[in-house]
This record gives sequence, structure tokens and C-alpha cells, in this order.
Amino acid sequence: MATPTAVVVGVGAERGLGAALCRHFAREGYHVLVAGRTAEKIEAVARGLKDLGLSAKAVLTDATVEADVVRLFDEAMSPGFGRDPSDLVVFNAGNNRQLDFRELSAEQFEDFWRVGCFAGFLVGREAARRLVPLGRGTLIFTGASASLRGKPGYAQFAAAKAGLRMISQSMAREYGPLGLHVAHVVVDGGIDGERLLKNRPEAKAARGEDGLLGIEAIAESYWHLHKQRRSAWTQELDLRPFKESF
Amino acid sequence: MATPTAVVVGVGAERGLGAALCRHFAREGYHVLVAGRTAEKIEAVARGLKDLGLSAKAVLTDATVEADVVRLFDEAMSPGFGRDPSDLVVFNAGNNRQLDFRELSAEQFEDFWRVGCFAGFLVGREAARRLVPLGRGTLIFTGASASLRGKPGYAQFAAAKAGLRMISQSMAREYGPLGLHVAHVVVDGGIDGERLLKNRPEAKAARGEDGLLGIEAIAESYWHLHKQRRSAWTQELDLRPFKESF
Amino acid sequence: MATPTAVVVGVGAERGLGAALCRHFAREGYHVLVAGRTAEKIEAVARGLKDLGLSAKAVLTDATVEADVVRLFDEAMSPGFGRDPSDLVVFNAGNNRQLDFRELSAEQFEDFWRVGCFAGFLVGREAARRLVPLGRGTLIFTGASASLRGKPGYAQFAAAKAGLRMISQSMAREYGPLGLHVAHVVVDGGIDGERLLKNRPEAKAARGEDGLLGIEAIAESYWHLHKQRRSAWTQELDLRPFKESF
Amino acid sequence: MATPTAVVVGVGAERGLGAALCRHFAREGYHVLVAGRTAEKIEAVARGLKDLGLSAKAVLTDATVEADVVRLFDEAMSPGFGRDPSDLVVFNAGNNRQLDFRELSAEQFEDFWRVGCFAGFLVGREAARRLVPLGRGTLIFTGASASLRGKPGYAQFAAAKAGLRMISQSMAREYGPLGLHVAHVVVDGGIDGERLLKNRPEAKAARGEDGLLGIEAIAESYWHLHKQRRSAWTQELDLRPFKESF
Repeated sequence: MATPTAVVVGVGAERGLGAALCRHFAREGYHVLVAGRTAEKIEAVARGLKDLGLSAKAVLTDATVEADVVRLFDEAMSPGFGRDPSDLVVFNAGNNRQLDFRELSAEQFEDFWRVGCFAGFLVGREAARRLVPLGRGTLIFTGASASLRGKPGYAQFAAAKAGLRMISQSMAREYGPLGLHVAHVVVDGGIDGERLLKNRPEAKAARGEDGLLGIEAIAESYWHLHKQRRSAWTQELDLRPFKESF
Repeated sequence: MATPTAVVVGVGAERGLGAALCRHFAREGYHVLVAGRTAEKIEAVARGLKDLGLSAKAVLTDATVEADVVRLFDEAMSPGFGRDPSDLVVFNAGNNRQLDFRELSAEQFEDFWRVGCFAGFLVGREAARRLVPLGRGTLIFTGASASLRGKPGYAQFAAAKAGLRMISQSMAREYGPLGLHVAHVVVDGGIDGERLLKNRPEAKAARGEDGLLGIEAIAESYWHLHKQRRSAWTQELDLRPFKESF
Repeated sequence: MATPTAVVVGVGAERGLGAALCRHFAREGYHVLVAGRTAEKIEAVARGLKDLGLSAKAVLTDATVEADVVRLFDEAMSPGFGRDPSDLVVFNAGNNRQLDFRELSAEQFEDFWRVGCFAGFLVGREAARRLVPLGRGTLIFTGASASLRGKPGYAQFAAAKAGLRMISQSMAREYGPLGLHVAHVVVDGGIDGERLLKNRPEAKAARGEDGLLGIEAIAESYWHLHKQRRSAWTQELDLRPFKESF
Repeated sequence: MATPTAVVVGVGAERGLGAALCRHFAREGYHVLVAGRTAEKIEAVARGLKDLGLSAKAVLTDATVEADVVRLFDEAMSPGFGRDPSDLVVFNAGNNRQLDFRELSAEQFEDFWRVGCFAGFLVGREAARRLVPLGRGTLIFTGASASLRGKPGYAQFAAAKAGLRMISQSMAREYGPLGLHVAHVVVDGGIDGERLLKNRPEAKAARGEDGLLGIEAIAESYWHLHKQRRSAWTQELDLRPFKESF
């Protein structure tokens, strides 16, 4: 039996959501393409998986660059002998930071869009081009509660994430009936990963046990989305720590 | 080790969502209280489970009657020797029918509310009273896309389901931080169960394979909600067949 | 030229939204039926309007009682010599109070629904029955932000208001194309009226100038909804004081 | 008394929404800056207003170019002797077209964003920089129902408009309390203007009388938003023809 292939776009630190998704999929028997824009980070993640006897390959990818995304999908759809073309794609790129709206430069606003929305378009389009003709597959977008609501200091992030959500909805309505499951996950709350621990080290203690989003726990819901039978697909779900106010 | 106990309120035909939930939970090792208002139906479901060597008990319950709901929870929280008090409750009652708004009687409008919303309040309140002090548990409401959008002929149904959704949100925001996971499932589409097959027998063929919501497939997502770790809980997800337009 | 007739259901204190709507419509030349369940209050409002040389009539109406609502519309559609049948109806009944969910009695939950949702159904249905055959008219529901979001302590209110919103949407989608303009106003924030001033006298000072919803200001937007041409109707708008956080 | 100044960004044909807004504001006594990227079109609109004895000035503006937007606001805030700095700004740029998602080029996707979202950011930011320190003013964004829902063929448009909506919400929550009224208008349906009449000439007849959005009717609601008192501001309203299904 051939090994199935998964693509995770937007992998950074080993203790991060992207890496946790790679790990979860690999443990479920997938060959995983670990895609991100920092070579040493994605290589560390891929190496870590191989050390566990799992199958993975780092693919240097700037998801805001069309040629990179196309190349990634070329690899994903011809993953080598004994492997099946990808049927599981996650778009997980993004960044977040509170910024004063009146101080925001045009470049900053554009950059948030490029990483959070435009890259999602490129990944979504390539996934549609490759998976829809096969009549199967799962494409999951990592979204945010900011996609539903704009708040002071977050216009640049909310605008990008709301755009990404609309890509996901448009794709789901068009390609769902053709067999491609497109889902959008509203991640609501701080993620218990390296980025948060570094930027706001006090956050973890302040929230208490399980007060931040567990990356393994998130990965379990992504996996559930992938395993859903087509007679009952989810287009959108939210994920937050039990204590998170919303 | 003690057997855990689940409560499913709103069980009808053996080929229905309520019965499928009971079956899924029982297979996962639960003792299941099969609650519904038609004795022969819930007894058939309970008997079917026992015939499979599973643990179940029919509890005649009109969920619109406060005393019935209180009694059901008395049973659920003292389920007998070797069993743990319930930590999994599903409110699954409801009905649906297109009716001309101008012809709608006050009684009809009230009846939809009583079954679809008031009963949900009674179940939600009893669940909160019993589970919150224990600091754990899962409560899932079966909702509908009508909870998000009113359409001609469905005011009575949408009003009830939107009310139910607000109960679920209010509870989730209050009791989530206290350890009770409250979730709302937006069921969108026809369910491949006895009710639909009887009322609109042509629907199944018209939709094609997997064109109706599979009851086992739905049950898998309810189970996933229950198994989510508290560091990444879902409050709301939608479920629809892959071909369903939305 | 005949005097047009307006109906405002849910009028209480003279310094309240219901009374302000009556005043605004009367000043715009309407004969206003002042409907509410406290005789002395609605009579005071009607008298106040007549003292200003305006046209009004108090109609004792418990909007949760079908016969009362039917009688009110009988009057509204045959308002007497020189007057036109009503083409402007506002449903403004409702109450609000934070209550502990686990302490909530079945009666309390039902009472919120009866006043906030069931009464709206009765008024909406009678309005549809009478106005749709005429192919014209405006029906406005006073809603609340709770119709969009459930919060701790407000399940009973949110459930009622969400139901009311669904009635409004169902009606708008069905009767808009037949000429009846159905709108829902999301009132978000405390109203600068007698009820709030009495129950939470400190609120006004705490919010500062214009920190509460001005009843005349609200009435201006209701009037605007009524005057909108049918080539650009609003189904829903929100209203909140400029300082209100949301 | 000084003449107030309004800015309308995104003015095209004389029979278009931008021009109708200019006309309405000018008739209400405003000096109007007619901003758009086609010199002959905005000059025709400005000339038309002056021929009616109204006050207007064409300002050539590519709203996707930061320097153009800054220059426009320099003019808006120093509009000349006898005129007050602007207190009314409308962002009305945008385009729409159904495109096959899998055929969409990166350039096309970016272009929709640049016109529909990035330009809105530039206008919003300049408006905030200039108006917030004055503690007054109205900023209205022309939105679309696509900002709420993605559909096949419209990912590029929905992503841009959803982003614009988030800018509007973020601004409203931050600057409302500081005195700047930020509103978002969900335009739902075809506009009875030159663009539609040219691209889909059959649409008007197909929809029947008042079946398309009237540009004067829309302008009345924009004006109402501007006139709302700060004790009851609207952040969002929808506008659609009475026959439009939604």
C-alpha cells in the first residue's frame, strides 16, 4: 500500500502549531512535506520526524511567492516511489501583532495581507488545481477569531484573516460538491508554542494550566476534519482554551 | 473501573440521529440513557443496544416537561452500582416543517419553541446544575442552519433554533471556564434517517450517494467534541453533506 | 388628504423609546395607536401627544395575548374617518434583566420568550396578514445585541431576542418582494429612558454626555427606515452610543 | 457661516453611486471633493454640480497610491477660504467580476485587494489621522454582501470586501469613542448605474421596476448615517432592492 502525502505550509519552530500538525500526520502514517521559509527550522522539524522513524521532507517555501508554491505542489503531487499524491493540505502561515492604526505604514498593511491572505490564495488555488481533478482531498486553513471581528490595533491582521476566510468559503462552496473538503479553523486564543512563549513569556503562567491552546490538541481536530466522511463535513469550527473569554 | 454514563435526549426511530448517538457512545463504553417521549421507540433502541452486548436504559422523557427532565438527570447522576454519574449529555430534540407564516397558529408557533428551545433550556439548566459542581463534562446541542438565518416558511423553526443557540453560547461563556464543555452543532441538510425517508422518500435518490447527512458520520463528530482536550475546545461547528449548497 | 396611521406596540413611560417613537411619528403627521399593557402609561403618552395638537389613541394591549393583538390591528386597519389604514408598525415590547442561569425557573424563561419573541410573532403575523395584501408598509422590530450573542446571565433574554430576529428575517425574505418592508434594529447599549434611570440611576452619570442611547435619536433612525425607498431597503442596522464598546 | 467639505473617493460615471453621493452632499450644502482615477469622469461630475450652482472640485486620485490619498486629504483639510475642513468622507472605490478561481492569476487577486481593501486602508488611515484629532466626522465605507460570505467565482472580491469590513470595524471600535463615526454599508444587489447598464444591459428589465439599487436612494441612507446623533450611531446597515433575494 502506498504512503499518503500531506503538505503543511507555514512551519516554524519545533514547538509550534505547524510542527505539531506535521508530527500528527506523520504518526498517522503520512509522508509529510514540511514547508516554511526558514531552512533551518523546517529541516529541524523534518529531522525530528525522521529520528522518530517517520517520513518527512523539508521543502523551503516562501508561501507569498507563486513559484515556490507551484514547486511545492509539484513535489506534493509526485512525492516519489511508493507514495501517493497529496490528499491533505494545511495552510498555516500567518503572523500577528498589535499595531497602532494611524502609525501603520502601507508596507506593514500589505505585508500582513501578503502572508495571511495572498499566500493562502496561492496555496488554495494550487490545491484546487491539483486536487479537484482527483475528486478528493482535504484543505484546511488556519484562521483566527480576527476573521470575524475587527478590533483596535488589529485592522491589518483582521483584514488579512477575514480575506482568508472568504477564500475558504468560496472554495468550499465550489469544490465541496466536487469532492474537495475545504475547512476553516477559527483559532481563538494564544497558542502554547515557541512564538508566544518568547514574545510574551508571562502569558503562560498568567493563564494557568491548559489556559493556552495546546498544539497537539489543535492537531487532533485538524485530523478529525480530515477523517470526516463526506456525508457530514465541517466547513468551520472554532478552537479555544476552556478558560478563554469570547 | 466504573462505566461512564451518557444521556441522549430526543431519541426516536432506530434509524435516526438520536439512536445513532446512543449506539456510538455505547460502543465507546458508555452506559447510555435513551430518552425520548415515545416508549416503544426508546425501548426498541435500548433493546437493540443490549442485544449487541452494550449498556443502555430507556427513560421515558418528555423534554418539555420540567419534572421529566429533572427525573432523567436524577437517574443520570446516580446511574447505579459500577457506573459513574453522567459526563456526556446531548440535547437532540426538535422538529421541523415548512409552514405558511400567515396561517401559523399561536399554538403551532409555541409548540416549535417548546420542543426546540424550552426543552433545551430545561436540559441545559439541569446539566449545568449537576455537572458544573463536578467541574467536568460535555453538553452538546443539536442545532440547525436555521439558527443562523430565517427563511420563508421557517420562522417558527428558526426562532426556536436561534434561541437554542443563544442558550448554548450563554452557557459556554459561563460554564466553559468552570470545566463544562458546551458545544452547538449546526446541522445543515437533510438527515439520512427514518423521518426524512418517510416524509420525503424521494429526497434520498435525488441527492445521490452521500447526499444526505449520515447519522453515523454525525455521531463521529459529536464524539470528537466530547474527546477534545480542554486546551482546545470547539463551541460551534457545522455539518453538511459534501454536495449540500450553502 | 387622509392621515396615515402608525402602531407602536410596547409603549411604557413617557420617557421611553416607545413613547419617543409615538411622538416622532405623530409629529410627522401620523395618527398613532399607542399600545401597551399599562392603561395609565399609554393614556399619559396619548394625552401628551394630544396636548401638543397631535393625533393619538391609547389602545390597551397585552401583546402576548392573541385577541388583544388582533383587536389592535382591527383598529389599526379601520382607524376612522379621514384616516388611512396603518402602514407603519413597530414592535417594541421586551424586557431585560440579568439572571443566574442555574437559578432560572421555567416560568421565568418562558416569560422572557412570551414578551420578547411570542408577542413579536403575533404582531408580525397580524401585520403580514393585513399589510401584505395591500402591497405596502413598514414593520420594524426593536432588537438587541443579545440577538447576536449569548452571554452569562442573559440566556433567557438572548434566546427571546434571537428568536425575534429570525421572525424578522423570515418575514423580510418572504414579504419584502411583496412590498412590506421588514426591518430589525439591533439596539446596543443602555437607553436613556425611565426604566434605566430608575433601575440603574448611576448609569447615566457613569457614561457621560451622550453615553446612553438617546430615544429621540433612535426614533430618527426608525423614521429613516420607514422613509427608505423600496429600491434601497435596510433589513438590519445597529444603534449604539458613540462611546459604547462592542 | 463656513461651507463644510465632503470627500467622495471612487467616483466614476455621472450615473453611478459615487456621483450620486457627490450630488446629494452638494445639495445639502457641502463643498464636495470628487475623487477618482479618470480625469474626464470626475471633471464631468464636478462640472455637472457646478452647473447646478453647487460647490465641487475634481481631484484626480488613484486611491491605491499612498501619495495621491495623502494629497487628497491635504486638500480636504484645507479646502480654501470660507470652507471648513472635511467632516464627511466616503470610500466608494471597488470593482467586481466573477472569475474562475483556478484560472485566477496572482496579479488579478492582488488587483482586487488593492482597489477594494488596500485603498480603503489608505483612505481610512488618512481620515483617522486628520479627523480624530478634531474629535468629529463621519467615515463611510461602501461594502458588499460578499464581505459576509464567499461564493464560487467571487473569492477575489469577497476577500477584498471582507478585509475592508474589518478595517471599518477596527476603526469604529477605536475611533468611535473619540468622536469619529465609522460606518460600513453592505450594498446587496445590482446598482442601477452606468457600470451595470453597460455590462449587463438585460439586468434592469429582468429585475423590473425598482429591482436594482437606486443610487439616489442609497445616497439618502449615507446622508442619514452622517446626520445620526452620536447618542445613536449605526456601524453597519445593509441596503438592497425590495425584490432582491438574500
